[in-house]
Amino acid sequence: MDKIKGLVAAVFAAYHEDGTINTAIIPELVEKMIADGLSGVFICGTNGEGPNLTMEERMAIAEAYVREAKQRIKVLIHVGHTSIAESRKLAAHAQEIGADAISSVAAFYFKPSGVKNLVDSIAEIAAAAPELPFYYYHIPTLTGIAMDMVEFLEIAETKIPNLAGIKYTASTLHEYQSCLNYKNGKFDMLFGYDEMLLSALSVGAQGAIGSTYTFAAPLYLKVMSLYENNEHERARVMQLHAVNMVRCLVKFPPIPAQRAIMKSEGIELGTCRLPLVALDVEQEKALHSSLTAVGFFSILKDVTLLQETK
Amino acid sequence: MDKIKGLVAAVFAAYHEDGTINTAIIPELVEKMIADGLSGVFICGTNGEGPNLTMEERMAIAEAYVREAKQRIKVLIHVGHTSIAESRKLAAHAQEIGADAISSVAAFYFKPSGVKNLVDSIAEIAAAAPELPFYYYHIPTLTGIAMDMVEFLEIAETKIPNLAGIKYTASTLHEYQSCLNYKNGKFDMLFGYDEMLLSALSVGAQGAIGSTYTFAAPLYLKVMSLYENNEHERARVMQLHAVNMVRCLVKFPPIPAQRAIMKSEGIELGTCRLPLVALDVEQEKALHSSLTAVGFFSILKDVTLLQETK
Amino acid sequence: MDKIKGLVAAVFAAYHEDGTINTAIIPELVEKMIADGLSGVFICGTNGEGPNLTMEERMAIAEAYVREAKQRIKVLIHVGHTSIAESRKLAAHAQEIGADAISSVAAFYFKPSGVKNLVDSIAEIAAAAPELPFYYYHIPTLTGIAMDMVEFLEIAETKIPNLAGIKYTASTLHEYQSCLNYKNGKFDMLFGYDEMLLSALSVGAQGAIGSTYTFAAPLYLKVMSLYENNEHERARVMQLHAVNMVRCLVKFPPIPAQRAIMKSEGIELGTCRLPLVALDVEQEKALHSSLTAVGFFSILKDVTLLQETK
Amino acid sequence: MDKIKGLVAAVFAAYHEDGTINTAIIPELVEKMIADGLSGVFICGTNGEGPNLTMEERMAIAEAYVREAKQRIKVLIHVGHTSIAESRKLAAHAQEIGADAISSVAAFYFKPSGVKNLVDSIAEIAAAAPELPFYYYHIPTLTGIAMDMVEFLEIAETKIPNLAGIKYTASTLHEYQSCLNYKNGKFDMLFGYDEMLLSALSVGAQGAIGSTYTFAAPLYLKVMSLYENNEHERARVMQLHAVNMVRCLVKFPPIPAQRAIMKSEGIELGTCRLPLVALDVEQEKALHSSLTAVGFFSILKDVTLLQETK
Repeated sequence: MDKIKGLVAAVFAAYHEDGTINTAIIPELVEKMIADGLSGVFICGTNGEGPNLTMEERMAIAEAYVREAKQRIKVLIHVGHTSIAESRKLAAHAQEIGADAISSVAAFYFKPSGVKNLVDSIAEIAAAAPELPFYYYHIPTLTGIAMDMVEFLEIAETKIPNLAGIKYTASTLHEYQSCLNYKNGKFDMLFGYDEMLLSALSVGAQGAIGSTYTFAAPLYLKVMSLYENNEHERARVMQLHAVNMVRCLVKFPPIPAQRAIMKSEGIELGTCRLPLVALDVEQEKALHSSLTAVGFFSILKDVTLLQETK
Repeated sequence: MDKIKGLVAAVFAAYHEDGTINTAIIPELVEKMIADGLSGVFICGTNGEGPNLTMEERMAIAEAYVREAKQRIKVLIHVGHTSIAESRKLAAHAQEIGADAISSVAAFYFKPSGVKNLVDSIAEIAAAAPELPFYYYHIPTLTGIAMDMVEFLEIAETKIPNLAGIKYTASTLHEYQSCLNYKNGKFDMLFGYDEMLLSALSVGAQGAIGSTYTFAAPLYLKVMSLYENNEHERARVMQLHAVNMVRCLVKFPPIPAQRAIMKSEGIELGTCRLPLVALDVEQEKALHSSLTAVGFFSILKDVTLLQETK
Repeated sequence: MDKIKGLVAAVFAAYHEDGTINTAIIPELVEKMIADGLSGVFICGTNGEGPNLTMEERMAIAEAYVREAKQRIKVLIHVGHTSIAESRKLAAHAQEIGADAISSVAAFYFKPSGVKNLVDSIAEIAAAAPELPFYYYHIPTLTGIAMDMVEFLEIAETKIPNLAGIKYTASTLHEYQSCLNYKNGKFDMLFGYDEMLLSALSVGAQGAIGSTYTFAAPLYLKVMSLYENNEHERARVMQLHAVNMVRCLVKFPPIPAQRAIMKSEGIELGTCRLPLVALDVEQEKALHSSLTAVGFFSILKDVTLLQETK
Repeated sequence: MDKIKGLVAAVFAAYHEDGTINTAIIPELVEKMIADGLSGVFICGTNGEGPNLTMEERMAIAEAYVREAKQRIKVLIHVGHTSIAESRKLAAHAQEIGADAISSVAAFYFKPSGVKNLVDSIAEIAAAAPELPFYYYHIPTLTGIAMDMVEFLEIAETKIPNLAGIKYTASTLHEYQSCLNYKNGKFDMLFGYDEMLLSALSVGAQGAIGSTYTFAAPLYLKVMSLYENNEHERARVMQLHAVNMVRCLVKFPPIPAQRAIMKSEGIELGTCRLPLVALDVEQEKALHSSLTAVGFFSILKDVTLLQETK
């Protein structure tokens, strides 16, 4: 698979009122992602509540996305689990149903003892879907595992034949730049910190995965095109809109807050699962007000229209 | 269920050479636990590699223990999982097969946002096995969740009808003492830090769960009886043997190290799963030497003989 | 110097209304400590706001305590500082004025890289007061330095000729027990977690340093005497009173809260220095109410009377 | 004072062989900094071992720099200390001797309890040098204080009349961008993560403070000029040289490693103070080899020559 350029949306889980997963909404979500100009969807990850779902639910969601995507948009399936044995089942299933790639976090109950142990663990998972590109999902703030990613690439490239790259969700752009340049760009480094996208572009990022791309992709695509045209000041202004939006989000639990934005945009994802808790009506209003105050909705509308008329 | 007095062994997982779980060894393990004077076994917990196992494997192990225990020793089943939905399946299964109690850690990928959220999350799990006593498994060093356990009891007692108590794996004995005395000892507080057992007894502990009880129960039972007979100096000496043994263990990854001790005692548990890595032969020797140097094996033999001749 | 038995109060700093240090109150404090049955005072430590004071202030306070103590109670002076050069000045001064012992935390801006580096750093400080016993002040929650204290003793005993022991402020009683038994009790291990005193006694503690001994020593001395008389249940009840009191404290910033208790006992210490902030009147009332609710003041009065009539 | 544009070198402390500070070398250092094109020097900060020095030493170093700079290069003096009272002395002294600005970290033994408490603490320091611009020194990895810097600006701007800005040493560029744009750029945001300079430029940074600017300023000035000329690919290559150099450094304790580079460039700074430990000869060789392997010295020579011939 070629490197992924552009944006991949880390999509959210959807639930019916009775708490069961809602796969019926997936066609609508896929069409929105395509219309928004996204290059791919990343499913059952952190934002997709992968760790909150059962094995069967994860497989059902994966199937629905692959079926609907119809090769028009890449489907990356997160198969991370505390149990490598369960991860391997999810990986094999992803390959079987025709996903485009898989990805997995490190073990996070028993922590890897070092880079070599991390690679050994990840290698077992990747080997269960040998025909699919594998992306290691680096997200130290959630897993508590903050190992050197250059060392990871050095060891992993010999042990994981299908290693495609890293979903790099950390703010350490110097390490990210090192990884980008590892063996002249051998690996695909998808950047995962939406609010730092412009900075990542400045060191050479070409692809990114993030949750806010689910509802604000046009804004970020504009950052990318402005940057490429050397319109730095305008790129900064646009990126600042994203930063302002994220600052509003993180005053609340961020996943529920983003689900509330989806709802306000007309996409009802239902109530997330414990320990996550949906925003209540007061919180929804407060979030909407603060997003309105920083001009988020009008900016998003502007860039979306702009994109459509292109 | 009455409170659990004495020691509960947090038993290890056993594997065949091909990496599949070995349930055939469970009868032997159960007989050993009974012979060693244990009051119960705690299965599929941290030491039992619960998070490394598939759902099917966890259920198979649970079934084997319940079947073999034949009410001679209590069987506590750990049902913790990143997904509450999966935890509930394990809980319902435990009730169905006739386990004595269940226990669960907090969510540990998405962390609870506070005590109330923790209780809400745990309540969903406990409710799936309403007829079984439920023990919350407090182990902040592994889950990263270090909430006030007195507040937990205050909120949980109204929301979790089958709350029996807490498996308290933390060194904060002042909080433990508060919990022990909550409403005149309403809850069963099983202490989980083997190397601090004597200290826990001093503030009123009557039951404990731990991994080293799997192979060194007679030593700790001796600590308990000496303490009860006010033979403080001798109790300290005996506890110090436990401390010395644990200091040897933690120079290695502790779960693999304890599995190596089991092996040296003639119980072959096979190779643990990644990211855990079994000790290599050199490490096994080094561990054995250091345990020998602190006199562990001879002490254990002495107290075991003593116990048998009683 | 012989080992310190009994309790050492980690006394608070005192200030005039204009914010300058109040040394005039020190004679009164010393008499109270002696009357309360304390074995020593620990000055300019965490509770004494050592890190908030200037060099001159620290020296002036040290002089006042040594002068007033007149050998009736031991004076231990904390000389920890980010700069070892400044620590050495404080150490030399302590020896010059006739203090009984000095103590120091590890460097805490630049962290020691390992036990050896820690010992090397501490050795420079201890060497500046070669005639005084030196206690290493182990308090990982504040300094972030959580090294193995047995290893510390092993390395330090050859490099610090005047090493007397450790002020051990951590809840890891197994390690504490190992240190107590190091070379048959070569070192003086003063336990620093007041709310776990009974547990420390159970593994062999004979001396302790803590802040709540400044105002509640009779309660803890009662714990010690009950424990020695094998009156375990009564010792637990008394220790639980201490635990309950500490639970009230830690609902507020603990140093200001303890200063408020001193005030309510008639000892006005003035306003602590930023970043510490004194409790406001509302907080003082809330603290007093909660301490009253758990019966702290009446218990303290009872045990104090009991002590006096002995 | 206008905003500081360009690079400020966080210079290292210098010692004689007997361990006393070497101020005699300061004229040479100042001339080097001017020749290298730097805009300022930051003294007695982390790299300058401020926390390792006595009050008198800090003042002597400050005096030497101000005297030599002769207004040709700005002198920023770090006055951070655990004791605000001592910080105030350093601040007043800096103003008296004619420094250009002062800066201070947050308290780091007693941690501020929140942004307001942090501002209150910092305000006391800034008020001791009311005529000098004050920069808050934000370095969460060393102080453990990671508060929201936008909130800091909001509260601080009303309480610290001489607040000039923040020395921002963190990788969270989204927050940095927010601060840069606070009230249309009211505050001077000096970026402190050398290895992420290019990324900081992309969101609008115009000034930076860092330790590697002490010996590699020409390389970074080249990054800045390439970025301004929209030569992105070349800017990235140049930044990558800096990243590669820093990766070599951090395989060793970074401050001693950088002092070794200074030595290899002919500037002998002497042996740093404990707990810092100078590289030994083997480590110096290993560092030199790895820097040579990534081409650091030749690149630095090239850009330096280029700069001189301009």
